[in-house]
Amino acid sequence: MTVSRVLNNKGSFSEETRQHVLHVMRELGYRPNRVARSLATAKTLKIGVVVPSISSAYFGEVLEGTERVLWECGYHMLLCNTAVDSRREHAVMDLFEEDRVDGVVVLSSHLPGDELSSYLKKQRAAVVINCDVEPGIAGHIYTDELKSMRMAVKHLQQAGCKCLGYIGLAIETYAGRERHDMFIRACEEVGLSVSSDNIVICDRRMGGLAARRLFKRVPETDGLICFNDEIAAGALRVCFELQRRVPEDVAIVGFDDIFLAELLVPALTTLRLKTTKQEVGAIAARMLLERIEGRSTRDEVVLEHELVVRESAP
Amino acid sequence: MTVSRVLNNKGSFSEETRQHVLHVMRELGYRPNRVARSLATAKTLKIGVVVPSISSAYFGEVLEGTERVLWECGYHMLLCNTAVDSRREHAVMDLFEEDRVDGVVVLSSHLPGDELSSYLKKQRAAVVINCDVEPGIAGHIYTDELKSMRMAVKHLQQAGCKCLGYIGLAIETYAGRERHDMFIRACEEVGLSVSSDNIVICDRRMGGLAARRLFKRVPETDGLICFNDEIAAGALRVCFELQRRVPEDVAIVGFDDIFLAELLVPALTTLRLKTTKQEVGAIAARMLLERIEGRSTRDEVVLEHELVVRESAP
Repeated sequence: MTVSRVLNNKGSFSEETRQHVLHVMRELGYRPNRVARSLATAKTLKIGVVVPSISSAYFGEVLEGTERVLWECGYHMLLCNTAVDSRREHAVMDLFEEDRVDGVVVLSSHLPGDELSSYLKKQRAAVVINCDVEPGIAGHIYTDELKSMRMAVKHLQQAGCKCLGYIGLAIETYAGRERHDMFIRACEEVGLSVSSDNIVICDRRMGGLAARRLFKRVPETDGLICFNDEIAAGALRVCFELQRRVPEDVAIVGFDDIFLAELLVPALTTLRLKTTKQEVGAIAARMLLERIEGRSTRDEVVLEHELVVRESAP
Repeated sequence: MTVSRVLNNKGSFSEETRQHVLHVMRELGYRPNRVARSLATAKTLKIGVVVPSISSAYFGEVLEGTERVLWECGYHMLLCNTAVDSRREHAVMDLFEEDRVDGVVVLSSHLPGDELSSYLKKQRAAVVINCDVEPGIAGHIYTDELKSMRMAVKHLQQAGCKCLGYIGLAIETYAGRERHDMFIRACEEVGLSVSSDNIVICDRRMGGLAARRLFKRVPETDGLICFNDEIAAGALRVCFELQRRVPEDVAIVGFDDIFLAELLVPALTTLRLKTTKQEVGAIAARMLLERIEGRSTRDEVVLEHELVVRESAP
């Protein structure tokens, strides 16, 4: 039978026949046997996905979108959690190579751009989110961090804040570096003085401690921008403990709009991607599949934040 | 060379030699080429993992523990998110079979026990967390929900609560069903009257709405137990909006002790596993690997909660 010959890549049939069978199967929503399909297409139907932390509320939602699209297209996700350890990221990349995945998606990396690029060069296809890589090597999804930080800084300035602080992540990632640098730049642009005293770097679950340190160092801090909503939640809690009223004494802005952001008291003002986090993950998966099939239509997608104004910085 | 013969399973060598080479390699921390190893061991070195929702704070941390152990032992995790859809869970199970994974870990299932069992029977090894399966088919990790619920109910009763409410999940899972049934049983045991009016079932992100409904239906509710901390956070927020003081007017208890639980204002009283969530995931991975290697030492692990008393129910 032609169909089984095509699926098993046995016997003779023209390329035209093969395409026709595959087309009909797609129309019917038929899921071919994966082993047969893997043989027929010389693909492993596996996609390597690198994430610094599965348990982060942000990456969890992005992953959900990536996984859904890969699944619908018959691909498996090999998920590797690097636990913010660049040695483990090296090992993961070696593994993807040995395991001959069809492509790789990297959601934030702790490797220097040239090292990440040299790994991704060896892959059939790659897409990165918020990573520095050499042009042309990977589909590239990134956020316009300057634009986002300008929104946050201007909003706080218009609310009357005179002394802004920033709490960032210690890890060396694109977003970590960009948000730090763009905070300084955006403050300078609007004439707010900012020094290293106004900036505290912390681990991802230490936002509260970092806020304490900042308030001790610069007690006049009346506006606070946090790398993400988890850090902002820690800062909110510390304001409650120190009896600094939010937003009257300190206005607080986070990033990401995680599910719990609007449930906090006061509800958190935050920068939310205009594209949902699930959709960002889905876009990454679609870009990767296009690149695997050699019909990539776009090399980069720039994401933008919008300010969601809630009680913590009205 | 002996080492490469062993790794590639080619040429002749004694079992003793093979064991010696593998022992030295382990001592040296050498990671064998996975393809060669897969051929040599007739394993795919892939483990299928089923999760209802990657983006849940609870499952995210459990997964981190599972992934770490599998990775350290040279196994890959194929992660499938069922999105709380039992049709998708069926498809995932078919896929694992086709793909010949070496074993399966199921973190909560929406399939009836007999259906899940019939899938897992076909696997070389399986471990389930909080699922109903026939005895002997899978390693079984579950929580003693009656004990946990008794702790929560007694704590609220001792704090003076007279009318308890419960907000649960609509989904048909072991934990969902057990927590619901055990809430009723624990209330009856201590002589608190409870009817269907005191119980609201909701989707996982609808805790706030559910709390509104409960307070409308039973305004005298002065104690609330929530299926998880995300639902409890929604209920806390609604109390703030309705000007019901927590804990003075309503005391609230959640489950899981997610990272944000202690950052909420008031900080959330919650039932926390005595074993960390990451360690639960690690235990599941270790049980599975033991079963794959035919040296399983235990068939079941019972997890216990402890009450973490914070401001929402002191």
